[in-house]
Amino acid sequence: MKGVILTVDPSATIVDITHHIDPQDILSAAYMLRASYRFFPKKTVHVSVVDPGVGSKRDIVALKKSGHIFVAPDNGILTPILEEGQIDSVVTVENPDFFLDILSQTFHGRDIFAPVAGHLSRGVALGELGSRKDPQRLKRLTTATPYLSSRGELVGMIISIDRFGNLITNIGAADLERMNRRQLETLPTIRIAEYTIRGISSSYQHVPHQTPLAIVGSRGYLEIAVNCGSAKDYFKAQKGEVIRLSC
Amino acid sequence: MKGVILTVDPSATIVDITHHIDPQDILSAAYMLRASYRFFPKKTVHVSVVDPGVGSKRDIVALKKSGHIFVAPDNGILTPILEEGQIDSVVTVENPDFFLDILSQTFHGRDIFAPVAGHLSRGVALGELGSRKDPQRLKRLTTATPYLSSRGELVGMIISIDRFGNLITNIGAADLERMNRRQLETLPTIRIAEYTIRGISSSYQHVPHQTPLAIVGSRGYLEIAVNCGSAKDYFKAQKGEVIRLSC
Amino acid sequence: MKGVILTVDPSATIVDITHHIDPQDILSAAYMLRASYRFFPKKTVHVSVVDPGVGSKRDIVALKKSGHIFVAPDNGILTPILEEGQIDSVVTVENPDFFLDILSQTFHGRDIFAPVAGHLSRGVALGELGSRKDPQRLKRLTTATPYLSSRGELVGMIISIDRFGNLITNIGAADLERMNRRQLETLPTIRIAEYTIRGISSSYQHVPHQTPLAIVGSRGYLEIAVNCGSAKDYFKAQKGEVIRLSC
Repeated sequence: MKGVILTVDPSATIVDITHHIDPQDILSAAYMLRASYRFFPKKTVHVSVVDPGVGSKRDIVALKKSGHIFVAPDNGILTPILEEGQIDSVVTVENPDFFLDILSQTFHGRDIFAPVAGHLSRGVALGELGSRKDPQRLKRLTTATPYLSSRGELVGMIISIDRFGNLITNIGAADLERMNRRQLETLPTIRIAEYTIRGISSSYQHVPHQTPLAIVGSRGYLEIAVNCGSAKDYFKAQKGEVIRLSC
Repeated sequence: MKGVILTVDPSATIVDITHHIDPQDILSAAYMLRASYRFFPKKTVHVSVVDPGVGSKRDIVALKKSGHIFVAPDNGILTPILEEGQIDSVVTVENPDFFLDILSQTFHGRDIFAPVAGHLSRGVALGELGSRKDPQRLKRLTTATPYLSSRGELVGMIISIDRFGNLITNIGAADLERMNRRQLETLPTIRIAEYTIRGISSSYQHVPHQTPLAIVGSRGYLEIAVNCGSAKDYFKAQKGEVIRLSC
Repeated sequence: MKGVILTVDPSATIVDITHHIDPQDILSAAYMLRASYRFFPKKTVHVSVVDPGVGSKRDIVALKKSGHIFVAPDNGILTPILEEGQIDSVVTVENPDFFLDILSQTFHGRDIFAPVAGHLSRGVALGELGSRKDPQRLKRLTTATPYLSSRGELVGMIISIDRFGNLITNIGAADLERMNRRQLETLPTIRIAEYTIRGISSSYQHVPHQTPLAIVGSRGYLEIAVNCGSAKDYFKAQKGEVIRLSC
């Protein structure tokens, strides 16, 4: 992919956001993308190739928002970006003038996403890639959003686990606002499996070494961590596991 | 290595092709190199440092072909490149003017390959690095080529396993041509250990989820895959394992 | 971090030295930094974010030495750099004009180190970041230095294990000078657990395949290796394990 991008746009600066998304894990990739894109310069082209549907009839789309451009399969990976709103425009990527001449059936990242990104980086307009698409019609992941249970608990899940063993949930700052704010600052209870953590810490250091804590992490989402340890090991936790938050 | 390259040529753009070659696995590196180089811009310098012979008497060579330059130990890693033919020239890298001043015995990647690549990137001619060498005299890996058995089977092997668990073989498109082409399009049989796969699919999606398939992958070689799963786990497969293809 | 650096200095060239430091392993990071910095061009900004104290009161410092700039937490990671001497100047990084507007409590790498590095790369002077600090007052790791035992053994430890399974110690060339040099060139004895290696080899190839050896590696430190094998597996070795060298 990088060779293709640099062939199209030799002046491109290429950054890998991550190579640690598990195969086919669209949900985790979606949150990673939302957490990172705004730290890049305007006009950055963000290319997401978590693409288990490669070779099937799934569309590829290009989306413009707040000066950033996203190129991705229409498989739900843009869900958190779409939820932020303020979408400028979306097109279906379908103009083969911007693809490699020979397309494989298994790696459109190299054959379509990369050359398209190179052309966008050089200044090609979104409209040249294909026809406009209504952002409302893009596929969305329904599992991506935490909800309030009938018992008044905020129910989310573990979306990804980083290399430190921190458990990153889909419970964002805006979700926490839904809870009783005054209580939250004192002693909300976070439940993971049979364990309970009381209160949200403001730094890893606020609890003793090897002690678990909850914290709003640098991505803007609630994380379960262990100070100088691994929450993944401590809780034997896995992606998809439910997290319940109550006051 | 990157620090050294940028010291010699501050304008160089550096791309990592892979850091997932197993230690000393020259064969896997050789196929990776052949699969990727042509997607890079002309004049790219491709540096391969899978170099178990570092510190011994093995040569280092620089090779020019189709506008690309390769710098590698003469240990067989260039075998698939050599098999493509159309070699412009090869030299032995021996002029210490282009090396670091102090050479370690364990990391010529940093001390020789990197500064030589930086100088080539700046435009130094191949001939300045050392004396010409006959491409026919470069070391070749004999295990690299599939063959037709006496029973008419095309016999290859698993060369590498990617992070999705796909099993990449050394059976290329040209090898498949050796088979009866008409039959191939209908129902060739691919055998791996005691398993049998019938037919070559044109996309992962052509079989149900978690079902194995054979496909010509994006590198141009026959791969054994499992749709949205891991063929490595499914077949408990290992590198070096034999793959048999018959009609 | 890379997005932030490029936002501040779009012309920056960014290189990852390593992503294979174990979480919180300041000691291993410290040696990696010392081993690599001098191979980068002068004026390089070296950013080290092994930062278990993030969110606590630890300082962040910027240090200038031999034309290189280092940005790091004051947690001992600069110990081997400080031991080399020739420090030009050190400042405490405290001027929020060079930070992101909103600081997280868990990822100062992105919010402070990265924008500061971007500004340094653009030419901002060290003195603009904060007040001067006496290099003698920077935190140092006491475990970092090998010592001569009462029995005349040079006692060091395994600092890191690379992906080939080589065991990299903290015993450097200067430490070996402390030993009886003439004897060293003949037959020093290296002890690791209950094993003994006799003599220091000058290349991996000087012993048979799968045989252990001691060698001064490319980082300038004594390493225990196995020719075309893994010393980590051979010795079941772990970081922190003691290495004893006698004549």
